[in-house]
Amino acid sequence: MTDAGTRSGIARFVDALGGRLAFGADYNPEQWPARTWSEDVALMRQVGVNVVTLGVFAWALLEPAEGEYDLAGLDDMLDLLHDNGIRVDLATGTASPPAWFSTKYPHTLPVDQHGVRRGFGARQGYCPSAPEYRAAAGRLAGTLAARYAQHPAVVLWHVNNEYGCHNWHCYCDVSAGAFRGWLRRRYGDLDALNTAWGTSFWSQRYTAWEQLGPPRDVTYNSLANPGQQLDWWRFGNDELLACYRVEADAVRGHATQPVTTNFMSFFKPLDYRQWAAEVDVVSNDHYLLGEDPARTHHLAMSADLMRSLAGGAPWLLMEHSTSAVNWQPRNLAKAPGELLRNSLTHIARGADGTLFFQWRASRFGAEKFHSALVPHAGTDTKVFREVAELGAALEAIRDVRGSRVEQPQVALLFDWQSWWAAGLDAHPSVDVDPMAEARRWHHALWSRNVAADVVGPGDALDRYRVVVVAVQYLLDDETARKLADFTRAGGTVVATFFSGIVDEHDHVRLGGYPGALRDLLGVRVEEFFPLAADEHVLLSAFGSGRVWSELGATAGADVLASYAEGPVAGSPAVTRRVVGDGQAWYVGTSLDDRGLDDLVGQLLVAAGVEPVVSGLPPGVEAVRRVGESGRFLFLVNHSGDDVPVPLSSGVELLTGRSLGDGMVVPAGGVAVVREA
Amino acid sequence: MTDAGTRSGIARFVDALGGRLAFGADYNPEQWPARTWSEDVALMRQVGVNVVTLGVFAWALLEPAEGEYDLAGLDDMLDLLHDNGIRVDLATGTASPPAWFSTKYPHTLPVDQHGVRRGFGARQGYCPSAPEYRAAAGRLAGTLAARYAQHPAVVLWHVNNEYGCHNWHCYCDVSAGAFRGWLRRRYGDLDALNTAWGTSFWSQRYTAWEQLGPPRDVTYNSLANPGQQLDWWRFGNDELLACYRVEADAVRGHATQPVTTNFMSFFKPLDYRQWAAEVDVVSNDHYLLGEDPARTHHLAMSADLMRSLAGGAPWLLMEHSTSAVNWQPRNLAKAPGELLRNSLTHIARGADGTLFFQWRASRFGAEKFHSALVPHAGTDTKVFREVAELGAALEAIRDVRGSRVEQPQVALLFDWQSWWAAGLDAHPSVDVDPMAEARRWHHALWSRNVAADVVGPGDALDRYRVVVVAVQYLLDDETARKLADFTRAGGTVVATFFSGIVDEHDHVRLGGYPGALRDLLGVRVEEFFPLAADEHVLLSAFGSGRVWSELGATAGADVLASYAEGPVAGSPAVTRRVVGDGQAWYVGTSLDDRGLDDLVGQLLVAAGVEPVVSGLPPGVEAVRRVGESGRFLFLVNHSGDDVPVPLSSGVELLTGRSLGDGMVVPAGGVAVVREA
Amino acid sequence: MTDAGTRSGIARFVDALGGRLAFGADYNPEQWPARTWSEDVALMRQVGVNVVTLGVFAWALLEPAEGEYDLAGLDDMLDLLHDNGIRVDLATGTASPPAWFSTKYPHTLPVDQHGVRRGFGARQGYCPSAPEYRAAAGRLAGTLAARYAQHPAVVLWHVNNEYGCHNWHCYCDVSAGAFRGWLRRRYGDLDALNTAWGTSFWSQRYTAWEQLGPPRDVTYNSLANPGQQLDWWRFGNDELLACYRVEADAVRGHATQPVTTNFMSFFKPLDYRQWAAEVDVVSNDHYLLGEDPARTHHLAMSADLMRSLAGGAPWLLMEHSTSAVNWQPRNLAKAPGELLRNSLTHIARGADGTLFFQWRASRFGAEKFHSALVPHAGTDTKVFREVAELGAALEAIRDVRGSRVEQPQVALLFDWQSWWAAGLDAHPSVDVDPMAEARRWHHALWSRNVAADVVGPGDALDRYRVVVVAVQYLLDDETARKLADFTRAGGTVVATFFSGIVDEHDHVRLGGYPGALRDLLGVRVEEFFPLAADEHVLLSAFGSGRVWSELGATAGADVLASYAEGPVAGSPAVTRRVVGDGQAWYVGTSLDDRGLDDLVGQLLVAAGVEPVVSGLPPGVEAVRRVGESGRFLFLVNHSGDDVPVPLSSGVELLTGRSLGDGMVVPAGGVAVVREA
Repeated sequence: MTDAGTRSGIARFVDALGGRLAFGADYNPEQWPARTWSEDVALMRQVGVNVVTLGVFAWALLEPAEGEYDLAGLDDMLDLLHDNGIRVDLATGTASPPAWFSTKYPHTLPVDQHGVRRGFGARQGYCPSAPEYRAAAGRLAGTLAARYAQHPAVVLWHVNNEYGCHNWHCYCDVSAGAFRGWLRRRYGDLDALNTAWGTSFWSQRYTAWEQLGPPRDVTYNSLANPGQQLDWWRFGNDELLACYRVEADAVRGHATQPVTTNFMSFFKPLDYRQWAAEVDVVSNDHYLLGEDPARTHHLAMSADLMRSLAGGAPWLLMEHSTSAVNWQPRNLAKAPGELLRNSLTHIARGADGTLFFQWRASRFGAEKFHSALVPHAGTDTKVFREVAELGAALEAIRDVRGSRVEQPQVALLFDWQSWWAAGLDAHPSVDVDPMAEARRWHHALWSRNVAADVVGPGDALDRYRVVVVAVQYLLDDETARKLADFTRAGGTVVATFFSGIVDEHDHVRLGGYPGALRDLLGVRVEEFFPLAADEHVLLSAFGSGRVWSELGATAGADVLASYAEGPVAGSPAVTRRVVGDGQAWYVGTSLDDRGLDDLVGQLLVAAGVEPVVSGLPPGVEAVRRVGESGRFLFLVNHSGDDVPVPLSSGVELLTGRSLGDGMVVPAGGVAVVREA
Repeated sequence: MTDAGTRSGIARFVDALGGRLAFGADYNPEQWPARTWSEDVALMRQVGVNVVTLGVFAWALLEPAEGEYDLAGLDDMLDLLHDNGIRVDLATGTASPPAWFSTKYPHTLPVDQHGVRRGFGARQGYCPSAPEYRAAAGRLAGTLAARYAQHPAVVLWHVNNEYGCHNWHCYCDVSAGAFRGWLRRRYGDLDALNTAWGTSFWSQRYTAWEQLGPPRDVTYNSLANPGQQLDWWRFGNDELLACYRVEADAVRGHATQPVTTNFMSFFKPLDYRQWAAEVDVVSNDHYLLGEDPARTHHLAMSADLMRSLAGGAPWLLMEHSTSAVNWQPRNLAKAPGELLRNSLTHIARGADGTLFFQWRASRFGAEKFHSALVPHAGTDTKVFREVAELGAALEAIRDVRGSRVEQPQVALLFDWQSWWAAGLDAHPSVDVDPMAEARRWHHALWSRNVAADVVGPGDALDRYRVVVVAVQYLLDDETARKLADFTRAGGTVVATFFSGIVDEHDHVRLGGYPGALRDLLGVRVEEFFPLAADEHVLLSAFGSGRVWSELGATAGADVLASYAEGPVAGSPAVTRRVVGDGQAWYVGTSLDDRGLDDLVGQLLVAAGVEPVVSGLPPGVEAVRRVGESGRFLFLVNHSGDDVPVPLSSGVELLTGRSLGDGMVVPAGGVAVVREA
Repeated sequence: MTDAGTRSGIARFVDALGGRLAFGADYNPEQWPARTWSEDVALMRQVGVNVVTLGVFAWALLEPAEGEYDLAGLDDMLDLLHDNGIRVDLATGTASPPAWFSTKYPHTLPVDQHGVRRGFGARQGYCPSAPEYRAAAGRLAGTLAARYAQHPAVVLWHVNNEYGCHNWHCYCDVSAGAFRGWLRRRYGDLDALNTAWGTSFWSQRYTAWEQLGPPRDVTYNSLANPGQQLDWWRFGNDELLACYRVEADAVRGHATQPVTTNFMSFFKPLDYRQWAAEVDVVSNDHYLLGEDPARTHHLAMSADLMRSLAGGAPWLLMEHSTSAVNWQPRNLAKAPGELLRNSLTHIARGADGTLFFQWRASRFGAEKFHSALVPHAGTDTKVFREVAELGAALEAIRDVRGSRVEQPQVALLFDWQSWWAAGLDAHPSVDVDPMAEARRWHHALWSRNVAADVVGPGDALDRYRVVVVAVQYLLDDETARKLADFTRAGGTVVATFFSGIVDEHDHVRLGGYPGALRDLLGVRVEEFFPLAADEHVLLSAFGSGRVWSELGATAGADVLASYAEGPVAGSPAVTRRVVGDGQAWYVGTSLDDRGLDDLVGQLLVAAGVEPVVSGLPPGVEAVRRVGESGRFLFLVNHSGDDVPVPLSSGVELLTGRSLGDGMVVPAGGVAVVREA
């Protein structure tokens, strides 16, 4: 986290809003006639909007021809907003180059894995390695920064937008050259590359740099080299991060406001841990998958990731939706009350503001059926009323600003490098999904109201009692050592199947799985026995397993459950090894939901981890933020029943009521209690 | 409908067959040795074939090298047919250019959305915008027309064949140039185009014509501009229609016989209403989808479309099959009797003839497993016997020729423009399918033996009592006004969800859905609530809904049913507004089958619409044709039981029996009653 | 089968192993540091490995730059192996050209059907028609042969590897030219080609050779010419066979050891009957599909094919796996005991050795999760112990070497040409699958322990009592005549639906199906009635049918079952015609499992065919090999129960126990009885 000032980026940003929690939206006035603008700002004031993101896709307007800028409209808009007390997160406008750019530089359009150059007409139509794109984007960013660095409305710089969403990899010849350069820098010489990639296999040895290229489509049903593929993911991340740096540097050359770019939750192509180190404000876009039954949990987990990326400090929810989106197969609307629940859950988990895409629903274009603060039907709508309700709620709880979520005692280790590696082809089972398994473990904690951080290999573990290592296939020596140290120092590690299998080059650690954790866990697995599709295997305890089983034996661990049927019957499935004051648990299969819940329950008891609040009925999510202005307990009732909560002191901020004989959180409602 | 003479094209065509209903097939003698031909014509005479379509794919034979024609064989074949009293629908032969053409002009092969140029070797291997193709096709058409305009066998000109079936869109550079020209003509200047397409979004503004192109594959998972996509559908239709005009003009330069090209029922790429205005005879190809349980209804609906395109006048069934086709996953054969039922259903619904693909089953090539009049197994077959039976039946009912289906009182509004627009991406739900919903409404009418026309925005409505507007997403102002006028004048409009949402540029009509119909219906919807996959929502009446629900309120309408569960419980689902002497009904969800049937029943009673015949048992389809030679009631028994019919006068033409004490239509059989 | 010596290739190969059954694996020492090699050979000796395949993917090492060879390492490795008594199947190393080759000759990378050139980085990255590839592969093969022809370790030459696995068809311009040349040689003139392909259809007539090309993607949803497609399959086989010849000739120019290339069981692109004639040893790679419930049967059927390709003589199992593979969606491991069962089943069915891929599990590369003889976990593993057990078992049964499987009385006719033709598009039903139906018939025989060969059209039939013709769609006149002769001479033919439909040009045989067999079977089918997806039709006997039904009549045959429902009720489904001393049975649908088993039971009784052993309980597979050294009965217990076997004399070789009062084959175990 770099920051020009002494206060953090998020603090400076919220200061600039008068200390209010951020509330606003993307604002695209160019889609509307000028007469709408004054209505817009009036409505914004009415509901309490205090910041808007401006100009995300304005390149074509701001630079209508190469090197010709037309900024008068933007001048006026900034003034109008400022005159109405609305601050601006000003975008560099570079997310999608204009038609004139793609026509003049056609080779900057991205090329897919099949070698097809993708056409202009959607968004992000650029190759991340294209020098012409980087130069043009940097020029525009610098031009805007120079002009508006001093404008009082501007409180945050929004570099580009959702990097990589539609162009995460480009397979063009320019990218190929960039990849070769990247590999040269990474490996120095070809011998090192050949060793890392294991090219003494299938006659793949490289003898000149020019022989190297992207993993385009290979021969039918065959498999590209995994080292090449893994480095391609790394390269893709690095190229987009380099694009970000060009613009951020251009902005910082002129401006002192904090700089951000909006993340997209668990977005596989970008290792946001690397990115978080280069933004002043961690900001996130989060959208519910309407047909996902676990969508509410996903929101919480995404927020926990953002908080963790921000080092526990507040972050900013840059985009979510008031109701339906437009890009899912079936775009389910939000039920009454869901907008408030979603928004306050982000706040509960550390956001110091909640912004939306977008202010006014478009009447044309590909996103015209995406919900907004002002729907097509206008202000006499459920959505707009709930927006106003949210504005009032944010005002009522404004004191939470700057507070931090109470330090979680559990960490979930989740590493992008491992995610990339685990997703490569020709693995034991396509059903092994690190993201899915991580979600299941986080869900088991969340449903018990046990707070958790989402940490990476480089993060300190000493603040935690429990570290969950769910399908972390790739583990380097340093991380393995860190986990062992943590355990010896009294911590509890719980690792699942298919963790610690390979090193950072995707080379299998020999001598028995899981090589990186074998000694720590006291388990030696000799052979994987993936399960067939939809197969279950009964265990002696903790129910049954799916996806995975294996043949192994303990070597110092106690067996908590073994396989009760099938070819590995009798082999250990769940084990625990006492290591000094700590414990190392191993779970060799994907436990069914109840079994996982049982196991997590036992684990938490053993590790002495408590929930945020005890005695809550199921369906009520609880999170606590703590700061100089007090302790704030957020209670989100996901159930359909009014729920009494066993609290007897404090003030519920949304209603202003003091707690005497307890409190009821209404069905689908939220309470924010300033604790005594 | 253009026509050189004073009588209509279809009348002149049937006149030329001696006033007999047309009966015949595609005839491809080039696939067989000459010795087969005399057997062919003898068999044709035996079964009563009176017309064949000749030369559809004969280009390679007729013009074996560029500009060199070899027409002697065609001369002989025309003479042979004429000598045997068989008339000819003479094809221009241009549906598939020969190998020499594709080799000499390789850039005329079509290019797909991914940029892949498709190879020679199937059919329709041409870019519709290719000038070389248009010129060559026009030359061949003109050459044939000049030579055979006076040949007495030729009674109809068959331009090309099934336009667009395999090349509906081409994304090559020539097409791109043609698209630019088309856009220039449509919009005049770029500002108008930018406004129509809504390019003040995602930085898509165009500043020079050369920047425009087809909607090729865009960046990963992103979305092309909807205005561009919608115009691409329009352009695709127009380019193929331009191809047709080249050939039709070439024919009409020499010949006076009527001109047709064969339609393909509800074929999405071609707006057949525009085409119907340029053919002398509306002709259609219809094939059952064997595994579709509603295939029999689809036949009826397709026939109703063709009759409507012909303005209520007779039309021609150019192709269907005697039994199985070859291009479906499982090509189910027709059960005994099905050939006759299918054929007479087309006649019942206005066809003045029934032709087939093809006369003799091919023994090689991609269609060798397509059924024909003469199967591989020869004439001692179920199929050939049923062909002969059909020939006799057509003779027995020949007096229906020239009569018109009794004017339906119901019209189904179905607009291709809206179909294209509704099918674009990023809409609220992929389950919303205008074609599927239109089929459900037409099916509900059909199963009650209520006749219906299928009309377009430009058609007059005053002949109807009821107009059904099922998922007509795009409605222009003029059509909306017409529907309102129709209602005020005493008509009944029933509109469904996702109708009247956008204008002709795909811009959302603001202020509450459905913008174009809101005032007429007295309903204001503020938010769509699409349902999850396979989800049902219970209503207070009319059963349950699928696919769609919504949050809204009435504004002048009465609530007939509201949502009984879920997030929009209490919101109106089915409403009715009395408008002067008329009524405007609204159905906000996709009713289940029984609920839809109930609603249609109530609607018809309210509108005073009667079935063709009352008191028929289920499974018997009834249609009446009326003309100078009498009133003809067709009864098609789709059930497995013999069915008594409550008619006491008239003559059943297939048996020649007079009706005294009623009549029985045998299981799977057909009766045609000349009513007293 | 060509062979330089007087003894067959397989006999010479096994002689060179000291008469021991071959036991070994692919060995890729280049993936490991040199210090591993001595451990490797020690472990090989420990478990009894006597032969390894060396150098399959060594091109990049052996020829690090064009024309520069580095063979010192190979010299040393051959010496090391030889010093330890381990013989070598020496690969020509040409299966995957190195990076320098693909970079220097980029147009040798294969092009797919869409026109996309596939990239380097997997395996088999070459166009089979590329002259540069053929020349380079031939040079390397010749270089190795010249150098190692006299090396005493080398006992077999392994040309290339798994030809065509990932590059079975290439659509590049070089391939197009080669295809044109191939067509010219096949047809001589264009008239013959036009006739064979049936180009008097869809205007496809060719008038110059240059117009011809591969069946690349054609227009949308259309269908390429079936003659072109069928010849494209033939051409693809021939091109790869030509590649083989280049290398085999290069080897034979120097070396006298037998030459092989490894087949891949039923691999559709290669007609292995043509290949078998050109190898000295028939060798095969067989991998279980872990999730296929019939995987054990597939192994037996694959082995029967190999034995048949070898003319009944022994063959070599070149590759299978000790446990899981890496390329299936879920790579199921082998249960304890399965390795032995699988291996001895191959031996039982005629293999004179069992080799594996690979010796030591890779720690990197795309196959690192493929099992091996030495797992990642080392030698203290189930797998390595079972490998040692197998080594001992092979030693115990070494006398079976050279013996032949007792001559089967049943032959399954399975022709690649027909497989290719039956798989083309636009056929009556996608559910018709010749491979699936052949597997079902072979399974019915296998489950009764009735031995069967898998024969082609060119094979002699007089050694059989029964010939099964399951979905042999394409049958030439000569084969039809041969089947009739076989029947007249007392044999029994049983043919199924969709057999004998077309001739070698894919032209339908007219006059009633099945044209090639109609007279023999005494059945005339006039129309196919494929069933809908998942539809069943009840028969009057033999249960029910799936996939297919048809309308027909007998003409000399007796009806054993007819359709009992549906549109063809009453039409014959199963018939039998007595023909002199023989019988011709016809089965017009895909019988359900029980019905098929019943029918096969009746058929075998009628034909006087006995199982290998009578009175065995279900789940025990029995095969007998007979040779100069005795009669060997293999009993493989696939069940979970110990099974008593009614044998009272002989010696069980694995245990060394003499049979007195019978014998028990343990659950999951194998017995090999040297019969008295």
